[in-house]
Amino acid sequence: MKFTVLKENLNQGLNFINRVAGKNLTLPILNNILISVEKNFLNLSATDLELGIKYWSLIKTEKEGKITVPAKILSSFINLLPEDKINLELKNQIININCQDYQTKIKGLSAEEFPIIPKIEGSNFIELNCNNFCNGLSQVVDFVVLNQNRPELSGVYFNFKKNNLTLATTDSFRLAEKVLSFEEKINQDFSFILPQKSVREIINIFSEKEGKLRFYFSQNQVLFEYLMTETPHPQVQIISRVIEGEYPDYQGIIPKKYEVQAVLSKEKLLNHIKTAGIFSGKTNEVKIKLTPQKEGIEIFSQNSESGENQSFLQGQIKYNSSPKEMEVSFNYRFIIDGLLNIKEPEVIFELNGEDGPAALKPKTDTSYIYIVMPIKSI
Amino acid sequence: MKFTVLKENLNQGLNFINRVAGKNLTLPILNNILISVEKNFLNLSATDLELGIKYWSLIKTEKEGKITVPAKILSSFINLLPEDKINLELKNQIININCQDYQTKIKGLSAEEFPIIPKIEGSNFIELNCNNFCNGLSQVVDFVVLNQNRPELSGVYFNFKKNNLTLATTDSFRLAEKVLSFEEKINQDFSFILPQKSVREIINIFSEKEGKLRFYFSQNQVLFEYLMTETPHPQVQIISRVIEGEYPDYQGIIPKKYEVQAVLSKEKLLNHIKTAGIFSGKTNEVKIKLTPQKEGIEIFSQNSESGENQSFLQGQIKYNSSPKEMEVSFNYRFIIDGLLNIKEPEVIFELNGEDGPAALKPKTDTSYIYIVMPIKSI
Repeated sequence: MKFTVLKENLNQGLNFINRVAGKNLTLPILNNILISVEKNFLNLSATDLELGIKYWSLIKTEKEGKITVPAKILSSFINLLPEDKINLELKNQIININCQDYQTKIKGLSAEEFPIIPKIEGSNFIELNCNNFCNGLSQVVDFVVLNQNRPELSGVYFNFKKNNLTLATTDSFRLAEKVLSFEEKINQDFSFILPQKSVREIINIFSEKEGKLRFYFSQNQVLFEYLMTETPHPQVQIISRVIEGEYPDYQGIIPKKYEVQAVLSKEKLLNHIKTAGIFSGKTNEVKIKLTPQKEGIEIFSQNSESGENQSFLQGQIKYNSSPKEMEVSFNYRFIIDGLLNIKEPEVIFELNGEDGPAALKPKTDTSYIYIVMPIKSI
Repeated sequence: MKFTVLKENLNQGLNFINRVAGKNLTLPILNNILISVEKNFLNLSATDLELGIKYWSLIKTEKEGKITVPAKILSSFINLLPEDKINLELKNQIININCQDYQTKIKGLSAEEFPIIPKIEGSNFIELNCNNFCNGLSQVVDFVVLNQNRPELSGVYFNFKKNNLTLATTDSFRLAEKVLSFEEKINQDFSFILPQKSVREIINIFSEKEGKLRFYFSQNQVLFEYLMTETPHPQVQIISRVIEGEYPDYQGIIPKKYEVQAVLSKEKLLNHIKTAGIFSGKTNEVKIKLTPQKEGIEIFSQNSESGENQSFLQGQIKYNSSPKEMEVSFNYRFIIDGLLNIKEPEVIFELNGEDGPAALKPKTDTSYIYIVMPIKSI
């Protein structure tokens, strides 16, 4: 193996794949990345057996070959090199790196010992807009629950139907749902659950990218692929296993109507809830109160140790039936989590009494909804 | 106690004094800050018994009084309030806070229980330039050693002589010294050792300030004071105990000459040393090598597990006597620490053989020197 690569390209690839290397402690080879040179492509791969990432770069190849090297050492070293060409050459399992006045040798391990990252057969793919897809994922990714008894709740639910993709998560206290649409219509509806970690990596790697992402699907694996701009060759691939199991039928939890609806400034509501949170004590409980004559909501909290807080936030209030007083308790952190995923300046907050699920959604964008259960009174 | 204060002023004060509140776990009252209102001044105080911070702000007073309240609750609450006037009123040990649509009560504890922060008698002070003083402190503050057997090494040595202030620290592996000058000439030389924590607070609080800082000194305490711009009244005071003991006579360690001197780019040297550090293994050892014919230094490191690195850095080399080959080992982290405290683009690196102390200093500024001992060969 002997080739020349630009520092910038090698560094970018290492930054992508490094995120998954070295996270599995039981199998030391997983601390390494696989470097392989074939034709005029360099390919870097890393895997933790659940999730694999592959990166390709165009290079000047003198000799093909492959080796694995410790990910951490290689990437911290390459990161410090000057912005220039780097020459790499494999001699007796040792990779020799030359760049300007630097000469370095890193000990490798045979490529044979590296686990095979599964491939997906078939050529059918769906094209997704990188930016919309990643933004949608980030609006739901936080609300999974890592519970071994209910593995199906530990990932993001993907539901492809005609030309819509619905993303959903729930940890049984709150639920988030985002609907995205894509251009082509698919022949057969399908769904799967993707581990939270894989979703986070998709967001990290693809959210800065422009254009389209290709999505391939098989029984147990999914693959997300981004192409090079210079040539129709993949630049980055993320291959992940899917979680076995049936996603719960959560649609019933989303309330179809509301008892009272408040349209509020998002930033102000966030601030009022945070302020109330300071006095909420160990239960994190804050109370939202509506009084028919008042054009806004009141927020209360109190705590025998430190004190109490009350504040009023103006807004447009609409009752579904005859106006009546209402007081609902929430974990203030759950309200904050929902608000932080809404990007519009105004939010709709819908309440359904002291036991019914409440909803937070952007004022105009109907594609996102966040449901939160009240704290039940004893 | 009843007064009105601008959120901005109260918030600034809380940010200053909060840093010292709540760090002493044995005495719960120290989690509180003392709020006291006298004439048209609000005074906030906090202490950990070693270090006290006081802040004053001009306010509209309706009634004088004092109380202590939990620092963390008050400051996180005030921080979230809108930028407006805040009304505070004490009723039965409870502080009532009103600001726009927020009404809050925070439980207090009697001011009688709060420890007295010592005062310094006398009116003699030395005026120091805030910016220069804080920059100088930050160039030495890191190199103390928190060793109970040698408490005198756990602080920064201040030595006032004529119109010079010398600041020094050493952890016995390296030593940093900075000389500052001030305008007036003092009558009697004096010196003391200030705890590292107090020095860090001085840097944090005063480094953003313009103009002069007043320094007062007594047997066991020192006081740093910054005045308000509106009126000649203190705005912030830091009162700290000094460390008992004699500072070691470190001057003998600073080499008076060198065997070889290299003038190098600071950024490049930093990068070369970091790169070598990756392959230095557990000892952190990197080797610096000088060869008479070469106009620069070579940097080596190797490690049986991961590999090895060598690089060459160009520079102007000057030998004191007849040129000879030299190889010196250092802990690479110590070299990095020294370089990070030099703000000039070029540094002077002076070596005194494999056992002699080496020096790093800015190329033109003679007021700073950093000494580092080599790793002794077995």
